[in-house]
Amino acid sequence: MEFSASQIAELLNGRIEGNPEVKVNKLSKIEEGELHSISFLANPAYQEFIYDTDASIVIVNNDLELERPVKETCTLIRVENAYECFAKVLETYSQAKSIEKVGIESNSHIAKTATLGENIYVGAFAYIGENVKIGNNVKIYPNSFIGDNAIVGDNTIVNAGVKIYHECVVGAHCTFHSGVVIGGDGFGFAPNKENDYTKIPQLGNVIIEDHVEIGANTCIDRATMGSTIIKKGVKLDNLIQIGHNVVVGENTVIVSQTGVAGSTKIGKNCLIGGQVGIVGHLTIADGVKIAAQSGVGHSITEEGKVVQGSPAYAMGEYKRSYVGFRKLPEILERLAELEKQIKVIDIKIWENRKP
Amino acid sequence: MEFSASQIAELLNGRIEGNPEVKVNKLSKIEEGELHSISFLANPAYQEFIYDTDASIVIVNNDLELERPVKETCTLIRVENAYECFAKVLETYSQAKSIEKVGIESNSHIAKTATLGENIYVGAFAYIGENVKIGNNVKIYPNSFIGDNAIVGDNTIVNAGVKIYHECVVGAHCTFHSGVVIGGDGFGFAPNKENDYTKIPQLGNVIIEDHVEIGANTCIDRATMGSTIIKKGVKLDNLIQIGHNVVVGENTVIVSQTGVAGSTKIGKNCLIGGQVGIVGHLTIADGVKIAAQSGVGHSITEEGKVVQGSPAYAMGEYKRSYVGFRKLPEILERLAELEKQIKVIDIKIWENRKP
Amino acid sequence: MEFSASQIAELLNGRIEGNPEVKVNKLSKIEEGELHSISFLANPAYQEFIYDTDASIVIVNNDLELERPVKETCTLIRVENAYECFAKVLETYSQAKSIEKVGIESNSHIAKTATLGENIYVGAFAYIGENVKIGNNVKIYPNSFIGDNAIVGDNTIVNAGVKIYHECVVGAHCTFHSGVVIGGDGFGFAPNKENDYTKIPQLGNVIIEDHVEIGANTCIDRATMGSTIIKKGVKLDNLIQIGHNVVVGENTVIVSQTGVAGSTKIGKNCLIGGQVGIVGHLTIADGVKIAAQSGVGHSITEEGKVVQGSPAYAMGEYKRSYVGFRKLPEILERLAELEKQIKVIDIKIWENRKP
Repeated sequence: MEFSASQIAELLNGRIEGNPEVKVNKLSKIEEGELHSISFLANPAYQEFIYDTDASIVIVNNDLELERPVKETCTLIRVENAYECFAKVLETYSQAKSIEKVGIESNSHIAKTATLGENIYVGAFAYIGENVKIGNNVKIYPNSFIGDNAIVGDNTIVNAGVKIYHECVVGAHCTFHSGVVIGGDGFGFAPNKENDYTKIPQLGNVIIEDHVEIGANTCIDRATMGSTIIKKGVKLDNLIQIGHNVVVGENTVIVSQTGVAGSTKIGKNCLIGGQVGIVGHLTIADGVKIAAQSGVGHSITEEGKVVQGSPAYAMGEYKRSYVGFRKLPEILERLAELEKQIKVIDIKIWENRKP
Repeated sequence: MEFSASQIAELLNGRIEGNPEVKVNKLSKIEEGELHSISFLANPAYQEFIYDTDASIVIVNNDLELERPVKETCTLIRVENAYECFAKVLETYSQAKSIEKVGIESNSHIAKTATLGENIYVGAFAYIGENVKIGNNVKIYPNSFIGDNAIVGDNTIVNAGVKIYHECVVGAHCTFHSGVVIGGDGFGFAPNKENDYTKIPQLGNVIIEDHVEIGANTCIDRATMGSTIIKKGVKLDNLIQIGHNVVVGENTVIVSQTGVAGSTKIGKNCLIGGQVGIVGHLTIADGVKIAAQSGVGHSITEEGKVVQGSPAYAMGEYKRSYVGFRKLPEILERLAELEKQIKVIDIKIWENRKP
Repeated sequence: MEFSASQIAELLNGRIEGNPEVKVNKLSKIEEGELHSISFLANPAYQEFIYDTDASIVIVNNDLELERPVKETCTLIRVENAYECFAKVLETYSQAKSIEKVGIESNSHIAKTATLGENIYVGAFAYIGENVKIGNNVKIYPNSFIGDNAIVGDNTIVNAGVKIYHECVVGAHCTFHSGVVIGGDGFGFAPNKENDYTKIPQLGNVIIEDHVEIGANTCIDRATMGSTIIKKGVKLDNLIQIGHNVVVGENTVIVSQTGVAGSTKIGKNCLIGGQVGIVGHLTIADGVKIAAQSGVGHSITEEGKVVQGSPAYAMGEYKRSYVGFRKLPEILERLAELEKQIKVIDIKIWENRKP
C-alpha cells in the first residue's frame, strides 16, 4: 500500500510544495518522522520539528509561514485544515488496512425473540436478550451484554465487555468502548423513618442518538422516569459519569472523568474539560466551555460562556483571582507592613499635633 | 393497570384534594405531566410546574402552600413525605410490571463444589467458582464472575459483568451494577533497594453487609489482611474507589467518582459528595457531610460536621474564603491604593512637621 | 503452617528481641494483634499500638525507639525496612497458601491461529483472538478478552473481565485487575465544516513493559499513531485514565482516579497522587511528586520537584497560599479597617496642617 504526494493532494484537494512523485507507505508523528512516511503539522507547538523531520510528506495548513526551508526529502501538502485532512488520510489508510469482522461466533447467546440486521458480527460470549433489535452492519464484540427490549441502530460498534441494560435505545453509527455501562440504575434513594433509605425504582431508560462515541468504562444511568438522552454527535471520553435524566445536547464534547449529576440539561456544542463536576437540576447553555477540574454549582444561561473554578465563574476573572491566590503570602506581609506604618503615622501625628 | 386516586391515597395513607375517582395508568415528571399520569412534587424548585401540569394526580407534601389553584384536571394527594411516597408508588408499579428472571441459562459455568439457593437466576457466561455459596432468590446476570469461596446472600442482584473476587462475602438484599469490581488487590507496594517496588500481597477480603447498593464500575479493593467492610445500608454511586482496609459505616451515602484511600474509617449516616478525595488512615465521625470535590486530609472527629475545600474545613468558613478569593483582584488594587496613600501621607506629615 | 521467630529472623536477616522460640500461624494488623500472629510496625502513627498488641511477633525498624517495654508475649524482630520485610513474609505466606490455577477451561474461545505458552490458565468465557501470543505461566481469568494480534508476556496475570484490544503488547510479570481496558481508541476528533466532528482513526497500540500492575477499571487508550507506552515497573491504581500517546516512565506510581491527557510524557520514579489531572502534550521530569487533586497545566522540567494546586506549583508555596486563603475573610476586614484609619488620618492631617 503506497501513495504518492499527487494522489494524496488530490484526495485532500491540497497544494504540493516539493516532489509530487514521492511515495509514502506508513504514518508517523512529525517529531518521529521517517523516510517514506506521511505526517502532519497542525499544533503550532510542534512547528520546530518541521525543519528536521525525515517524513517524506507533511500535511500543513495553508497559512503556515516557514522561518527557513524544510529538508530536501520533505514534500509539503498545503490544505485549509491540516488536522482534519490528516484524519481523512488516516481514515482511508484505516479502511484499506482493517479486516472487517462479520458473522456470528458460536458460543454467543441470542434470544429467539431478538431481531438481527444484515452483515452483523456477534462475538463469542456476547449476550443478546429477549426482543432486542440489532440493525444492519452492527458489530457486537465478545463478552458484551444487551438486555431485553434494547435497540441498537445500524453501523454501531459495541466493543468487548460493553453492557447495555434492558429497554435502552442506541442510534446508528455509534461507537462504545469496552466497559461502557448504559442504563444502570440512577442514584435515587429517599430517606425514611427507619433512618435508612428506600430505593426509588428507576423505571426509565437511556436514549443515545446517532454518531455518538463513548469512551471506555463511562457510565450513563437510566432515568427514574422518561429518558436520559445523549443527543446526536456527542463525544464522551473514558470514565465519565452521566446521572439519571440528564440531557447532553448535540455535538457536545466531554473529556474524561467528568461527572454530571441527575436531571441537568447541557446544551449543544459545549466543550467540557476533564474531571469537571456539574451538580444536578441545572441548565447549561449552548456553546459553553468549562475548564478542567471545575465545579459547576449554578445554571449557566449565557451562550458560549467560558468558566473555571470550583464553584466555577468567568474564566478570565478566575485566572486573575488565582494570580492573587499565589500572592496571598505577599498580601499578608504587605497588610502587616501597612498596619505597622499606620501605627507609626499615628504617633507622628500625635507628636505633630497643634498645641 | 389502572389505579384511582382513592386507591393510591389508601396505599399512602394520604389526603385527597380533588376527584377521588380520577384514574391513572402511567408515571410522569411534573414538568412533562400528561392526562392519566401520576406525578409528585417534593423539590420546591419545581413548584411552579404544579399550576400548569396536565398530570391527573400529583403527590405533594402536607405543608405545601399553593399560591393559586391547580388545574381542574389535577387531583392532589397530600402526604407527609411526597418523595418517599412516590417511591412507594414506583415500587408497586415496578413490581406489577417486571418479569422476574429465574433459572440457569445454558452456557453458564457453575463449579461442582458451589452451593446454590432456591429460585435463583444465573445468566449465560456467568462464572461461579469453587465452593461459592449463592443464597435464595439471587439474580446473577450474564458475563459476571464470582471467584472461589465467595458468598452471596439472599435476594442480592448481581448485574451483567460484575466481578467479585475470591473469598469476598456479600450480604442479602444488595444490588451491584455492571462493571462493579469487588476484591481487586489493594494498592500496596514497598520501595526496595533495587529502586523499584515489591508488591505487598493482598491476602484479606471484602465484606459487604445487607442492603448495600453499588453503582456501575465502582471498585472496592480487598484488604491487605483482614477485611475492607461496607456496612449495612450503604449506598455507593458509580465510579467510586474504595481502598484496602477501608470501613464505610451504616447508611452512609457516597456520590460518584469519590475516592477513599486505604485504612480510612468512615462513620455511619455520612453524606459524601461527588469527586471527593479522602486520604488514607483517617477517621471520619458519624453524620459528617463533605461537599463535592473536597479533599479531606485530616480526621474529622466532630459528629455531623459539614466541610468543604481541598484541604477541607468548615463549609461556612470555606464559603467566606471563596468570596474573598473572587475579590482577590480587588484586594490587590485596594492594597496598592493604600500603599500609595500611605506614601502621600508620609510626605504631608513631613511637610507639617513641627519646626 | 507455623513459623518460629528464629525462622523468620533468618528469612529477613533480622535481629530478635524476645523469645526466638515463639511460633506464629497467622497474620494480623498491629492494632488487632492476636496471640500466635505476626504483625509489623512501619508507620509512626501506629507506634502507640505496639505496647498493647497481643501479636506474638512484630517486625520493626532498626531505629525504632521504644518509650516503654512491650508485652511479655511480644517478640520483636528488628530489620532495616519493616514494611518491605513484612511484604516478604506475606509473599512467603501467600505462596504457601495459594492454589495455582492451571489448564484451559471448556467454554473458553481460543482462535486456532493463537500461540499458547506452557503452564497457562484460561478461564471459561475468556476470548483469545487471531494470532494472539500468550507466554508461559500466564493466567487469563474468565470473561476476559484479548483482541487479534495482541501479545501477553510470561507470568502475567489477567484477571476476570479485563479487555485488551487488538495489536496491544503486554510484557512479563504484569498484573491487570478486573475491568482494565487496554487499547480503547484515543479521544481524537477534528471539528469540520458541518459543525460536528470527524473521528481521527486511532491506528497505534499500547505497549506495556514488564512488572507493571494496573488497578481495576483503569483505561489506557491506544495511540493515534505509534504507541502509548507504560514502562517497566509502573504501578497504576484503580480508575485511572491514560490518554493516547502518553508515556509513563519506569517505576512511576500513580494513585487512583488520576487522568493524564494525550501525548504527555511522564518521567521515571514519579509519585502522582489521586484525582490529579495532567493536561496533554506536557513533559514531567523524573522523580516529580504531584499532590492529590492537583491540576498540572505546564511541563515540569525540574527533577524531583514537588507540586500542588490547580494549576499546580511548588507545594511549599501552595500551602502558604492556602493559609492565606483561609484568612481571606480576616484580610478583607483588616483591609477595610486600614481604609477607615487612613480616612481618619487624612482628616487629622488636614486639621494639623500648617496655617
